[in-house]
Amino acid sequence: MTTIICTECGAQAQPLDWRCTHCGGPLDFDELPPFDAKAIIAGDFSLWRYRAMLPVKRRISLGEGLTPLAKTKIDGRALYIKQEYLNPTGSYKDRGTVTMMNHIAAQGVTEVVEDSSGNAGASVAAYSSAAGIQARIYVPESGSPAKKALIQAFGGTLVEVPGPQQAKTDACEKAAETTTYASHAWSPYFTLGQMTAAYELWEQFGKVAPDAIATPVGHGGLFLGLARGFRQLYNAGLVDKVPRMFAIQAANSDPIVRGWESGADEPVLYEVQPTVADGIIVKVPVRGKAVLSAIRESDGAALRVAENTIVPAQETLARHGFIAEPTSAVTLAALPQLREILPETASLVLVLTGNGLKNVER
Amino acid sequence: MTTIICTECGAQAQPLDWRCTHCGGPLDFDELPPFDAKAIIAGDFSLWRYRAMLPVKRRISLGEGLTPLAKTKIDGRALYIKQEYLNPTGSYKDRGTVTMMNHIAAQGVTEVVEDSSGNAGASVAAYSSAAGIQARIYVPESGSPAKKALIQAFGGTLVEVPGPQQAKTDACEKAAETTTYASHAWSPYFTLGQMTAAYELWEQFGKVAPDAIATPVGHGGLFLGLARGFRQLYNAGLVDKVPRMFAIQAANSDPIVRGWESGADEPVLYEVQPTVADGIIVKVPVRGKAVLSAIRESDGAALRVAENTIVPAQETLARHGFIAEPTSAVTLAALPQLREILPETASLVLVLTGNGLKNVER
Repeated sequence: MTTIICTECGAQAQPLDWRCTHCGGPLDFDELPPFDAKAIIAGDFSLWRYRAMLPVKRRISLGEGLTPLAKTKIDGRALYIKQEYLNPTGSYKDRGTVTMMNHIAAQGVTEVVEDSSGNAGASVAAYSSAAGIQARIYVPESGSPAKKALIQAFGGTLVEVPGPQQAKTDACEKAAETTTYASHAWSPYFTLGQMTAAYELWEQFGKVAPDAIATPVGHGGLFLGLARGFRQLYNAGLVDKVPRMFAIQAANSDPIVRGWESGADEPVLYEVQPTVADGIIVKVPVRGKAVLSAIRESDGAALRVAENTIVPAQETLARHGFIAEPTSAVTLAALPQLREILPETASLVLVLTGNGLKNVER
Repeated sequence: MTTIICTECGAQAQPLDWRCTHCGGPLDFDELPPFDAKAIIAGDFSLWRYRAMLPVKRRISLGEGLTPLAKTKIDGRALYIKQEYLNPTGSYKDRGTVTMMNHIAAQGVTEVVEDSSGNAGASVAAYSSAAGIQARIYVPESGSPAKKALIQAFGGTLVEVPGPQQAKTDACEKAAETTTYASHAWSPYFTLGQMTAAYELWEQFGKVAPDAIATPVGHGGLFLGLARGFRQLYNAGLVDKVPRMFAIQAANSDPIVRGWESGADEPVLYEVQPTVADGIIVKVPVRGKAVLSAIRESDGAALRVAENTIVPAQETLARHGFIAEPTSAVTLAALPQLREILPETASLVLVLTGNGLKNVER
């Protein structure tokens, strides 16, 4: 029996609650199935090879997970590139969306809402269509026409909200009072799917852990999924350490880096600014506290990169064969800082989260 | 020792010949390593898990292969979707490009030419960059700015050729007199990599063959790779049949369908017309003869789809979660015809070849 509790007050939640109805805190699993290497389904080439470790039943699947890990060398540094952008809808979001939407579908839900003008909106729209569920995606009226078109192509209904970015979130939270909220930021079932990225890296590295992992961080779902997945592997006695976890943010939107630098337990909240790394513009990282804790526990760090280094890093990735969106490129932009922290021989994974085919100029 | 011979006159070729220097015929392997299930490297989650069956050494890799197979239902018909568009550069081409470019790199080549304004050009550019090889890609001056931008993003040098489509091919063949031709249409090392798609389908289906496979066909590299791969599995006693192979073409560019309908051994050559399925506009399918033979041997067929059915099929695929380019959608557009031929219970795989993220409107 799966129990969901509030991470702030400990109250037990109902299956479709998106945050604690008592205190408003983020929800999480009370406990998760232990990792069991013998339970891996070797003949399943998707994240469902780890189904024994996922407390959700597969009803829908687009073939998500088991994304490629490639080795390359950039600026003379050997790097491993985890191509999360090769998930079905073009982003890492699919791992979390599929576990979240399977949970929601199992509850008999016929309509969901979500707020995102980008990858999460597209992912929720696609998996909702696959599940026969109507998805209304709240996007800023000022958002990019291409991203709106992608959400609609996947069968999502757009609700365009005028005003600042926050207005779409406010409108969606209002709608969530009466409609199921399929929230990539809040749902514990989203982070659940992200854990499988750690299990794959462990298999792809020959059943050891890499020394370090760097990911872009907005709300922190991927970062936390990876940290938790490796913690599960550690608890099962399958790795001797959790990799050093590096959370990378753009200087224009860096609440977690500010929290880390100040030694705080929480992100520093402020009016974040636009950045080309538009996938990680987040004023209030829902799981920021957990991200900071995972950084500390893994001997990692939170790093900011200058705005003018992001597009050049994206171009460098492409010239090595990796067509990632700008948000993903913050990981490579942080390489000079990572090299100061890590030995050159340390195995370092950059996780690229979004497909750059969406961004190629026309 | 790998021997390459002419499929027309039998003359032996040199490693970097792109067609027979005696008669101009297409080249092929004299023989290939037999398929050996025990030689699969289970811990390698790319097409290199079949490296024992590939007579080429891996020097470069972007993580190609082991693409997802998803099950869906469209218009009440269960279908399997092989998402070849989730290869690294966004198309099935990467399977063939990686084996071709590893072969070429092993010969000490520093510069290649290729003609393609689309997926092949992007793929060759990316893998050439990964191998430290300069790639000059011959494209029509009138080609899409987006596709040109993608080729350049991957580090390819564009050579824009004025005039009709054929002009770029003529210019490239001229350049190939003095520079290595990395030709997705001609190189036997390209078809080699495409065979791995069959091996994967066999593993993904639980070590049996699906009943039928439909692919878009231009030159026929993917189609032929699949047919050959299953023939290898059959020869190894691992499947009891080769799947029925269906070659799908757009009505505006259907030389193989015309050849099939007339009972000929060769495609019917004529002035093909533009179609939204722009990845399969091919006047002279290099391996058309072999494609027709593979259709006959597998009890398959060549089918044409009307131009006005292609974009609606693409839209239907997206509303089921599959974001494919128009070229890929010819397979779904052929579904009514396939249902007339195949029992409803037959397992049918549609192979989607190119990523539709490139085509989302801006």
